[in-house]
Amino acid sequence: MRAVDVIMKKRDGGELSREEIALVVDGYVSGAVPDYQVSAWLMAVFFGGMTARETADLTDLMLNSGSVMDLSGIAGPFVDKHSTGGVGDKVSLVLAPMAAACGLKVPMMSGRALGHTGGTLDKLESIPGYRTSLTEAEFRALIERDGYAMTGQTATTVPADKKLYALRDVTGTVESVPLITASILSKKVAEGAEALVFDVKCGPGAFMKTIEGAEALAQSLARTGKAMGKKIVSVITDMTEPLGFKVGNFLEVEESLDCLEGRGPADLMELSYVLGAWMLVAGGLKKDSAEARRGCEEAISSGRALELFMKNVVGQGGDPDRMLQLRGKARSRHSLELKAKAEGFLSIDAYKIGLAGVRLGVGRDKTSDPVFPDVGFEFFRKSGARVAAGERLGLMYGKDEASLEAARSLVEEALSVCSEPPERRPLVIKEIIA
Amino acid sequence: MRAVDVIMKKRDGGELSREEIALVVDGYVSGAVPDYQVSAWLMAVFFGGMTARETADLTDLMLNSGSVMDLSGIAGPFVDKHSTGGVGDKVSLVLAPMAAACGLKVPMMSGRALGHTGGTLDKLESIPGYRTSLTEAEFRALIERDGYAMTGQTATTVPADKKLYALRDVTGTVESVPLITASILSKKVAEGAEALVFDVKCGPGAFMKTIEGAEALAQSLARTGKAMGKKIVSVITDMTEPLGFKVGNFLEVEESLDCLEGRGPADLMELSYVLGAWMLVAGGLKKDSAEARRGCEEAISSGRALELFMKNVVGQGGDPDRMLQLRGKARSRHSLELKAKAEGFLSIDAYKIGLAGVRLGVGRDKTSDPVFPDVGFEFFRKSGARVAAGERLGLMYGKDEASLEAARSLVEEALSVCSEPPERRPLVIKEIIA
Repeated sequence: MRAVDVIMKKRDGGELSREEIALVVDGYVSGAVPDYQVSAWLMAVFFGGMTARETADLTDLMLNSGSVMDLSGIAGPFVDKHSTGGVGDKVSLVLAPMAAACGLKVPMMSGRALGHTGGTLDKLESIPGYRTSLTEAEFRALIERDGYAMTGQTATTVPADKKLYALRDVTGTVESVPLITASILSKKVAEGAEALVFDVKCGPGAFMKTIEGAEALAQSLARTGKAMGKKIVSVITDMTEPLGFKVGNFLEVEESLDCLEGRGPADLMELSYVLGAWMLVAGGLKKDSAEARRGCEEAISSGRALELFMKNVVGQGGDPDRMLQLRGKARSRHSLELKAKAEGFLSIDAYKIGLAGVRLGVGRDKTSDPVFPDVGFEFFRKSGARVAAGERLGLMYGKDEASLEAARSLVEEALSVCSEPPERRPLVIKEIIA
Repeated sequence: MRAVDVIMKKRDGGELSREEIALVVDGYVSGAVPDYQVSAWLMAVFFGGMTARETADLTDLMLNSGSVMDLSGIAGPFVDKHSTGGVGDKVSLVLAPMAAACGLKVPMMSGRALGHTGGTLDKLESIPGYRTSLTEAEFRALIERDGYAMTGQTATTVPADKKLYALRDVTGTVESVPLITASILSKKVAEGAEALVFDVKCGPGAFMKTIEGAEALAQSLARTGKAMGKKIVSVITDMTEPLGFKVGNFLEVEESLDCLEGRGPADLMELSYVLGAWMLVAGGLKKDSAEARRGCEEAISSGRALELFMKNVVGQGGDPDRMLQLRGKARSRHSLELKAKAEGFLSIDAYKIGLAGVRLGVGRDKTSDPVFPDVGFEFFRKSGARVAAGERLGLMYGKDEASLEAARSLVEEALSVCSEPPERRPLVIKEIIA
């Protein structure tokens, strides 16, 4: 069988065997199958989809293209969380120390900001000195000592995903549930997690705009992860407005500290507890989510989560004193006040805020673009708040004056005021336990 | 707009503007758009299809990627026929001189055998000395003098099609009606034809296996050609069994001579008259197809078509005396008799005969494979004939003994004998005048 036969079989609605998928995926990594055949195959998968078995085989083949983190000798359970990406989503910074404080081991490999969504690594690196490129030995040692560590992917983490993702990005084949599933899951399994909680964001500020799309991805992640022998919980959560009040890099570190001190914004606290509780259940430390939630709340109220966070900052090269000195002060001098255009009910559009954030220097359009620690948004109100005309809604900070100008009209669109309150949906839309 | 945006727009069901199609097609030819983006786009077109307007723009952009044959100074009307490819289809060899004898100018650019279908150029080159790579000046001069000439495409004939076809071939994107339409039509318009008759083959031995598929292509060719200002007739014809009694290269030249002498097999004579008549109508020389058919019959019965054929052989470097000496004798010494396995009604499967022909040396799997003049099939009976067990059905000739062995089981399958006569459909299934 040749690559073109595999393409045609998928094109014509066939179910591919593991060998047929391997022919394309392994062939692509080895260089035996050229990119132009792989991109045609990806588009055929986009249209034809994949069965659960095909998706699991694809994930496993991608996983096997690289090395799996060796966590042997460390006592588990190893549990991680993955979010499909949102705006103002700093939950990982809170969740990892909270889950570790409850007894889980969290081997967290995170990503960088791209497009309108933020990146955990960029946020952590806004802490002076903090390093996110740990060696495997450093990663292991920190997990063993503190229960968690935060790092980026290494060159050997799922090389098939790196090649395939780069190709998907330029060939219009990103938005395919089985391809997204295999990309996410192969990387998460490669970091050594035994159980995984997926936060599938849904709404204008998310990759999945609709409930149907988010549910399809959540179900696919749960089903495929289960087929690979992992315990999976997928939680669909709302991403209509940004999470919390702050969007940025160091700005989000500040808000994470607030959460770890038990006084963070309600939506962020709630999401951290919900995801943390499912991590404890998925890891087998707690029987039900109510009991698990109490454990999480206790990890925050006792200060143990905050303590682990501060230890981690030191462990990863960061300067905790400098971090605390900067708190509330690390603000670009290029700022602009945001005001309500009219009297009425406020809506904050997460997508537009995310895009405007890219212009300010929070995130990036291309992986080579630099990001800045002291830029972003501080909001004073949340969506649904009744505001007066001219009322101060927040501040935005840009890397320079031109960036403020570039972001201004988008931010004005993002902050709409209507005579009726915006339709609200619950923060946690659905929970799927596989 | 970037190439990836054009891919996504087509993927999501959008209608592309001429500029958007140009971005991909011109970009591919110039090297600005890489093949991996083009192949993803081709697969999106495969699934999403194209509107009539998109198909016409694609055809026109492909046409404009190269040079159009300059026939200025020669009196028309310029009319050509194109067949989507069959087995035993030597109609072009009969049709071109017949149409020229009726007063048309036929600037015929033909192709080579590939897969199970034969190629006009390979058949012509089996005539000793015959050259199919004419210069433009030679092509023009022969058309002016004899009313027709037979050549292959030059390096400047629709380079976009050459690149796109090669990519489609290896990415599973050949079988797309708009892509086939643009590929066929851009080449036919490039040769300078003002009116075109398309013979869309339908059946097991054709590219289009079903009536629905053939009709979709026939309609698309008619509609798109008309949108480009050409007069078009699409004829859907049956390709269940091979045309005529002979399949091969020189074997088909022999049968073409029979036709030009007015004593060819009934199916071939009929198809030549039908297509020839539509060429005369499309070219505006005759008002209706009945009158046009009488003109074609007269071109054969008067010997004028044969005379032009012989002049063309000399004009293109062939040796007519040698050709006539070889007639009935150019047979490979490696031959095998084909016999009926049982008593009953014969069916001959064109597709299997075509594939077996490749093994014998009639055609090729790869464009670099050589073909042989003196190999192929001579059948004594046609599908539907009542045969006795053990009755001689024909002879096959191979390039060597191994080729006969390689073809044998396929040919046995191709010659089935049943107690019931095979279902027959008319040779001419549908005629579409645009």
